[in-house]
Amino acid sequence: MNGGRCRPATTAGQRGHGRSRVRWPPLDLPAGAVTTVPLKGHRQTTVRTRVSRGAALTLGPAPARTDGGPAGAGKACLTKQRVAIIGAGPSGIAQLRAFESAQKKGAEIPELVCFEKQDDWGGQWNYSWRTGTDQYGEPVHSSMYRNLWSNGPKEVLEFADYTFDEHFGKPISSYPPREVLWDYIDGRVKQSDVKKLVRFATVVRWVEFNEDTEMFSVTVEDLKTGETETSEFDYVVVGSGHFSFPNYPDFDGIETFPGFVVHAHDFRGAESFANQDVLMIGASYSAEDIGSQAYKMGARSVTMSYRTEPMGYDWPEGMQEMPGIKHIDGSTVHFVNGESKDFHAIVLCTGYLHHYPFLPSELALHSPNNLYPEHLYQGVVSEVNNRMFWLGAQDQWLTFNMFDAQA
Amino acid sequence: MNGGRCRPATTAGQRGHGRSRVRWPPLDLPAGAVTTVPLKGHRQTTVRTRVSRGAALTLGPAPARTDGGPAGAGKACLTKQRVAIIGAGPSGIAQLRAFESAQKKGAEIPELVCFEKQDDWGGQWNYSWRTGTDQYGEPVHSSMYRNLWSNGPKEVLEFADYTFDEHFGKPISSYPPREVLWDYIDGRVKQSDVKKLVRFATVVRWVEFNEDTEMFSVTVEDLKTGETETSEFDYVVVGSGHFSFPNYPDFDGIETFPGFVVHAHDFRGAESFANQDVLMIGASYSAEDIGSQAYKMGARSVTMSYRTEPMGYDWPEGMQEMPGIKHIDGSTVHFVNGESKDFHAIVLCTGYLHHYPFLPSELALHSPNNLYPEHLYQGVVSEVNNRMFWLGAQDQWLTFNMFDAQA
Repeated sequence: MNGGRCRPATTAGQRGHGRSRVRWPPLDLPAGAVTTVPLKGHRQTTVRTRVSRGAALTLGPAPARTDGGPAGAGKACLTKQRVAIIGAGPSGIAQLRAFESAQKKGAEIPELVCFEKQDDWGGQWNYSWRTGTDQYGEPVHSSMYRNLWSNGPKEVLEFADYTFDEHFGKPISSYPPREVLWDYIDGRVKQSDVKKLVRFATVVRWVEFNEDTEMFSVTVEDLKTGETETSEFDYVVVGSGHFSFPNYPDFDGIETFPGFVVHAHDFRGAESFANQDVLMIGASYSAEDIGSQAYKMGARSVTMSYRTEPMGYDWPEGMQEMPGIKHIDGSTVHFVNGESKDFHAIVLCTGYLHHYPFLPSELALHSPNNLYPEHLYQGVVSEVNNRMFWLGAQDQWLTFNMFDAQA
Repeated sequence: MNGGRCRPATTAGQRGHGRSRVRWPPLDLPAGAVTTVPLKGHRQTTVRTRVSRGAALTLGPAPARTDGGPAGAGKACLTKQRVAIIGAGPSGIAQLRAFESAQKKGAEIPELVCFEKQDDWGGQWNYSWRTGTDQYGEPVHSSMYRNLWSNGPKEVLEFADYTFDEHFGKPISSYPPREVLWDYIDGRVKQSDVKKLVRFATVVRWVEFNEDTEMFSVTVEDLKTGETETSEFDYVVVGSGHFSFPNYPDFDGIETFPGFVVHAHDFRGAESFANQDVLMIGASYSAEDIGSQAYKMGARSVTMSYRTEPMGYDWPEGMQEMPGIKHIDGSTVHFVNGESKDFHAIVLCTGYLHHYPFLPSELALHSPNNLYPEHLYQGVVSEVNNRMFWLGAQDQWLTFNMFDAQA
């Protein structure tokens, strides 16, 4: 426990750091590359004098205080740097473990608080049967479905410091199902002491950066009690992911399509597609995988509509690709090649948005889901604020190990 | 347009209002009843010096300024009171029209800004084919389905100042369908000049109350551009409704139920229930209405599970009521009376949450969906902050006219 904070705005000058001085560079980057990035776009000046009611945690013993005890507001003192980590998915967990490893090697690490809106960690891998919003009224995070199998071989997902063989005590197949991967992720973190750093069922409502104090004010809500609180951090690490908010384009006539319409994010199982004609809109992982699920579960036909080019696999009888959609009339979908077909259900496999409803626009990352998000230096440090770090903002190749390398 | 605001915290004293003095009482309540409610629970002091970039609008001519022009920060001046209205559903629209009417009668009205996260007004009545989140990644507001008919006779929904006959030019049936009601609501507001006061596709991200200045800081995001901005208001009117965030209880075994599971909020049509055995969990409006829809659309059977007592209607063959659920095993639902039945689909008609993710807990309304929400004086004024007003927080009886009376 680390009780009363002692960083009111009025002590900022006494703490003796300049505008862009990075006191604790958590990344192995050339220091100059980080520190010369100008702070810009901060047009808002917010001075908070409220003391956080939240308990911040450290892995090690409490740091020595120059004033020998809890400090009152306005009293100058030295405390540890504080880092807020948003999200306890694979990215956030990797960050926590990286700090833990550094500490075990003798490094002094900052005070860490990880906020996770779900009741458990695992991010996407924490399956939810609910769709839309969760038991707390928050948008459901996971886009996983019951019968999801990994779309990449496990060898590229394996953590460098914790092998699949070590976890399971025996070799497993290359494309493990969801539950097996979840068990693996959970098993790895259970071996560490970082769970106590995570505040579960706690959603980040709003983050602000105060240019004068160079501190972030992070406002969170405890979803179980409804209590909100604001506390100050030196750094913010965003690991909330980018496969949670569906990209939901409109299609002419879809509003009166009488069948079942769902985005891949809210798809949970293909059993109800038995004997149905099902349309997947999209030509990427989701369309291929959910289409195959529907086929396996006895769909009468599976059609996948591509916008730019077909996947072009050798599909089995009953699966086919079609070009883009012109319009929808009742149950009938008209494609741009002039063909049409009636469907019972439509699954939008149209991807995801980068959506960070807890960030003011001067801190937000505006990027489509691509491999090198704009505004990120080496894919991690925000160009608009060098105290803000983004994990997992790339697309999903080599994901688990990439999170570790970033951390 | 009303440009630079001139209410920095330092001028609060000069503006000469006490802690609880209500300068503009928008409600016809005994003044003492409002003004003696103590301000409490404000533990956060936030001083913003940022000037709003948002354009605030007035219905009438721009008010005279004592300083003859835009004022700089820290300069004392008198400006109109500013009111933020959250949501342009029936509640918010009624509020806007009430101000418009008052102005037409010669009253000076405050400056009004209404924030609506959807692209159009109508709230619940603005149907969305999307479920879960909308095109901007925000939780879908509307719980309406394609074939919804009003569950109350139109006579109790009619606005006092705009009759159904006036709108349609002829009598219509007592239980009009959704599109007809939407047309009616839209027609009424089209006759007024209030649409320019609404900022559409603009979501309220965070609201704070500054006890020193007695002003609210309202931070919003323009969903089309991603830009956020913060501006100051004297009053906040919450009309965001309470039928948008599903109450989503858990049921033992539902996570492996192989069929389609959906909350009534995300139900859009019963056509796909043809020839299926469908379970409604709940015994209120949604269960009755969606159950009846499923029956009409050819469901093989419709079962409605009640927790406390059955609706007890004389159901047609194929519809039945059952008591609560003990657990679910695969497709089989076991009820507490020892009976069980297999289902293809489950619709959770389990109600809604009061959920205001834009409010700190000291301003939030914690209330189940009941007729007299706690903490509201005469159902409208928040007991914890007498500058905050709640519209439409009661349950849904006599709704449209009640919104007008509240406004």
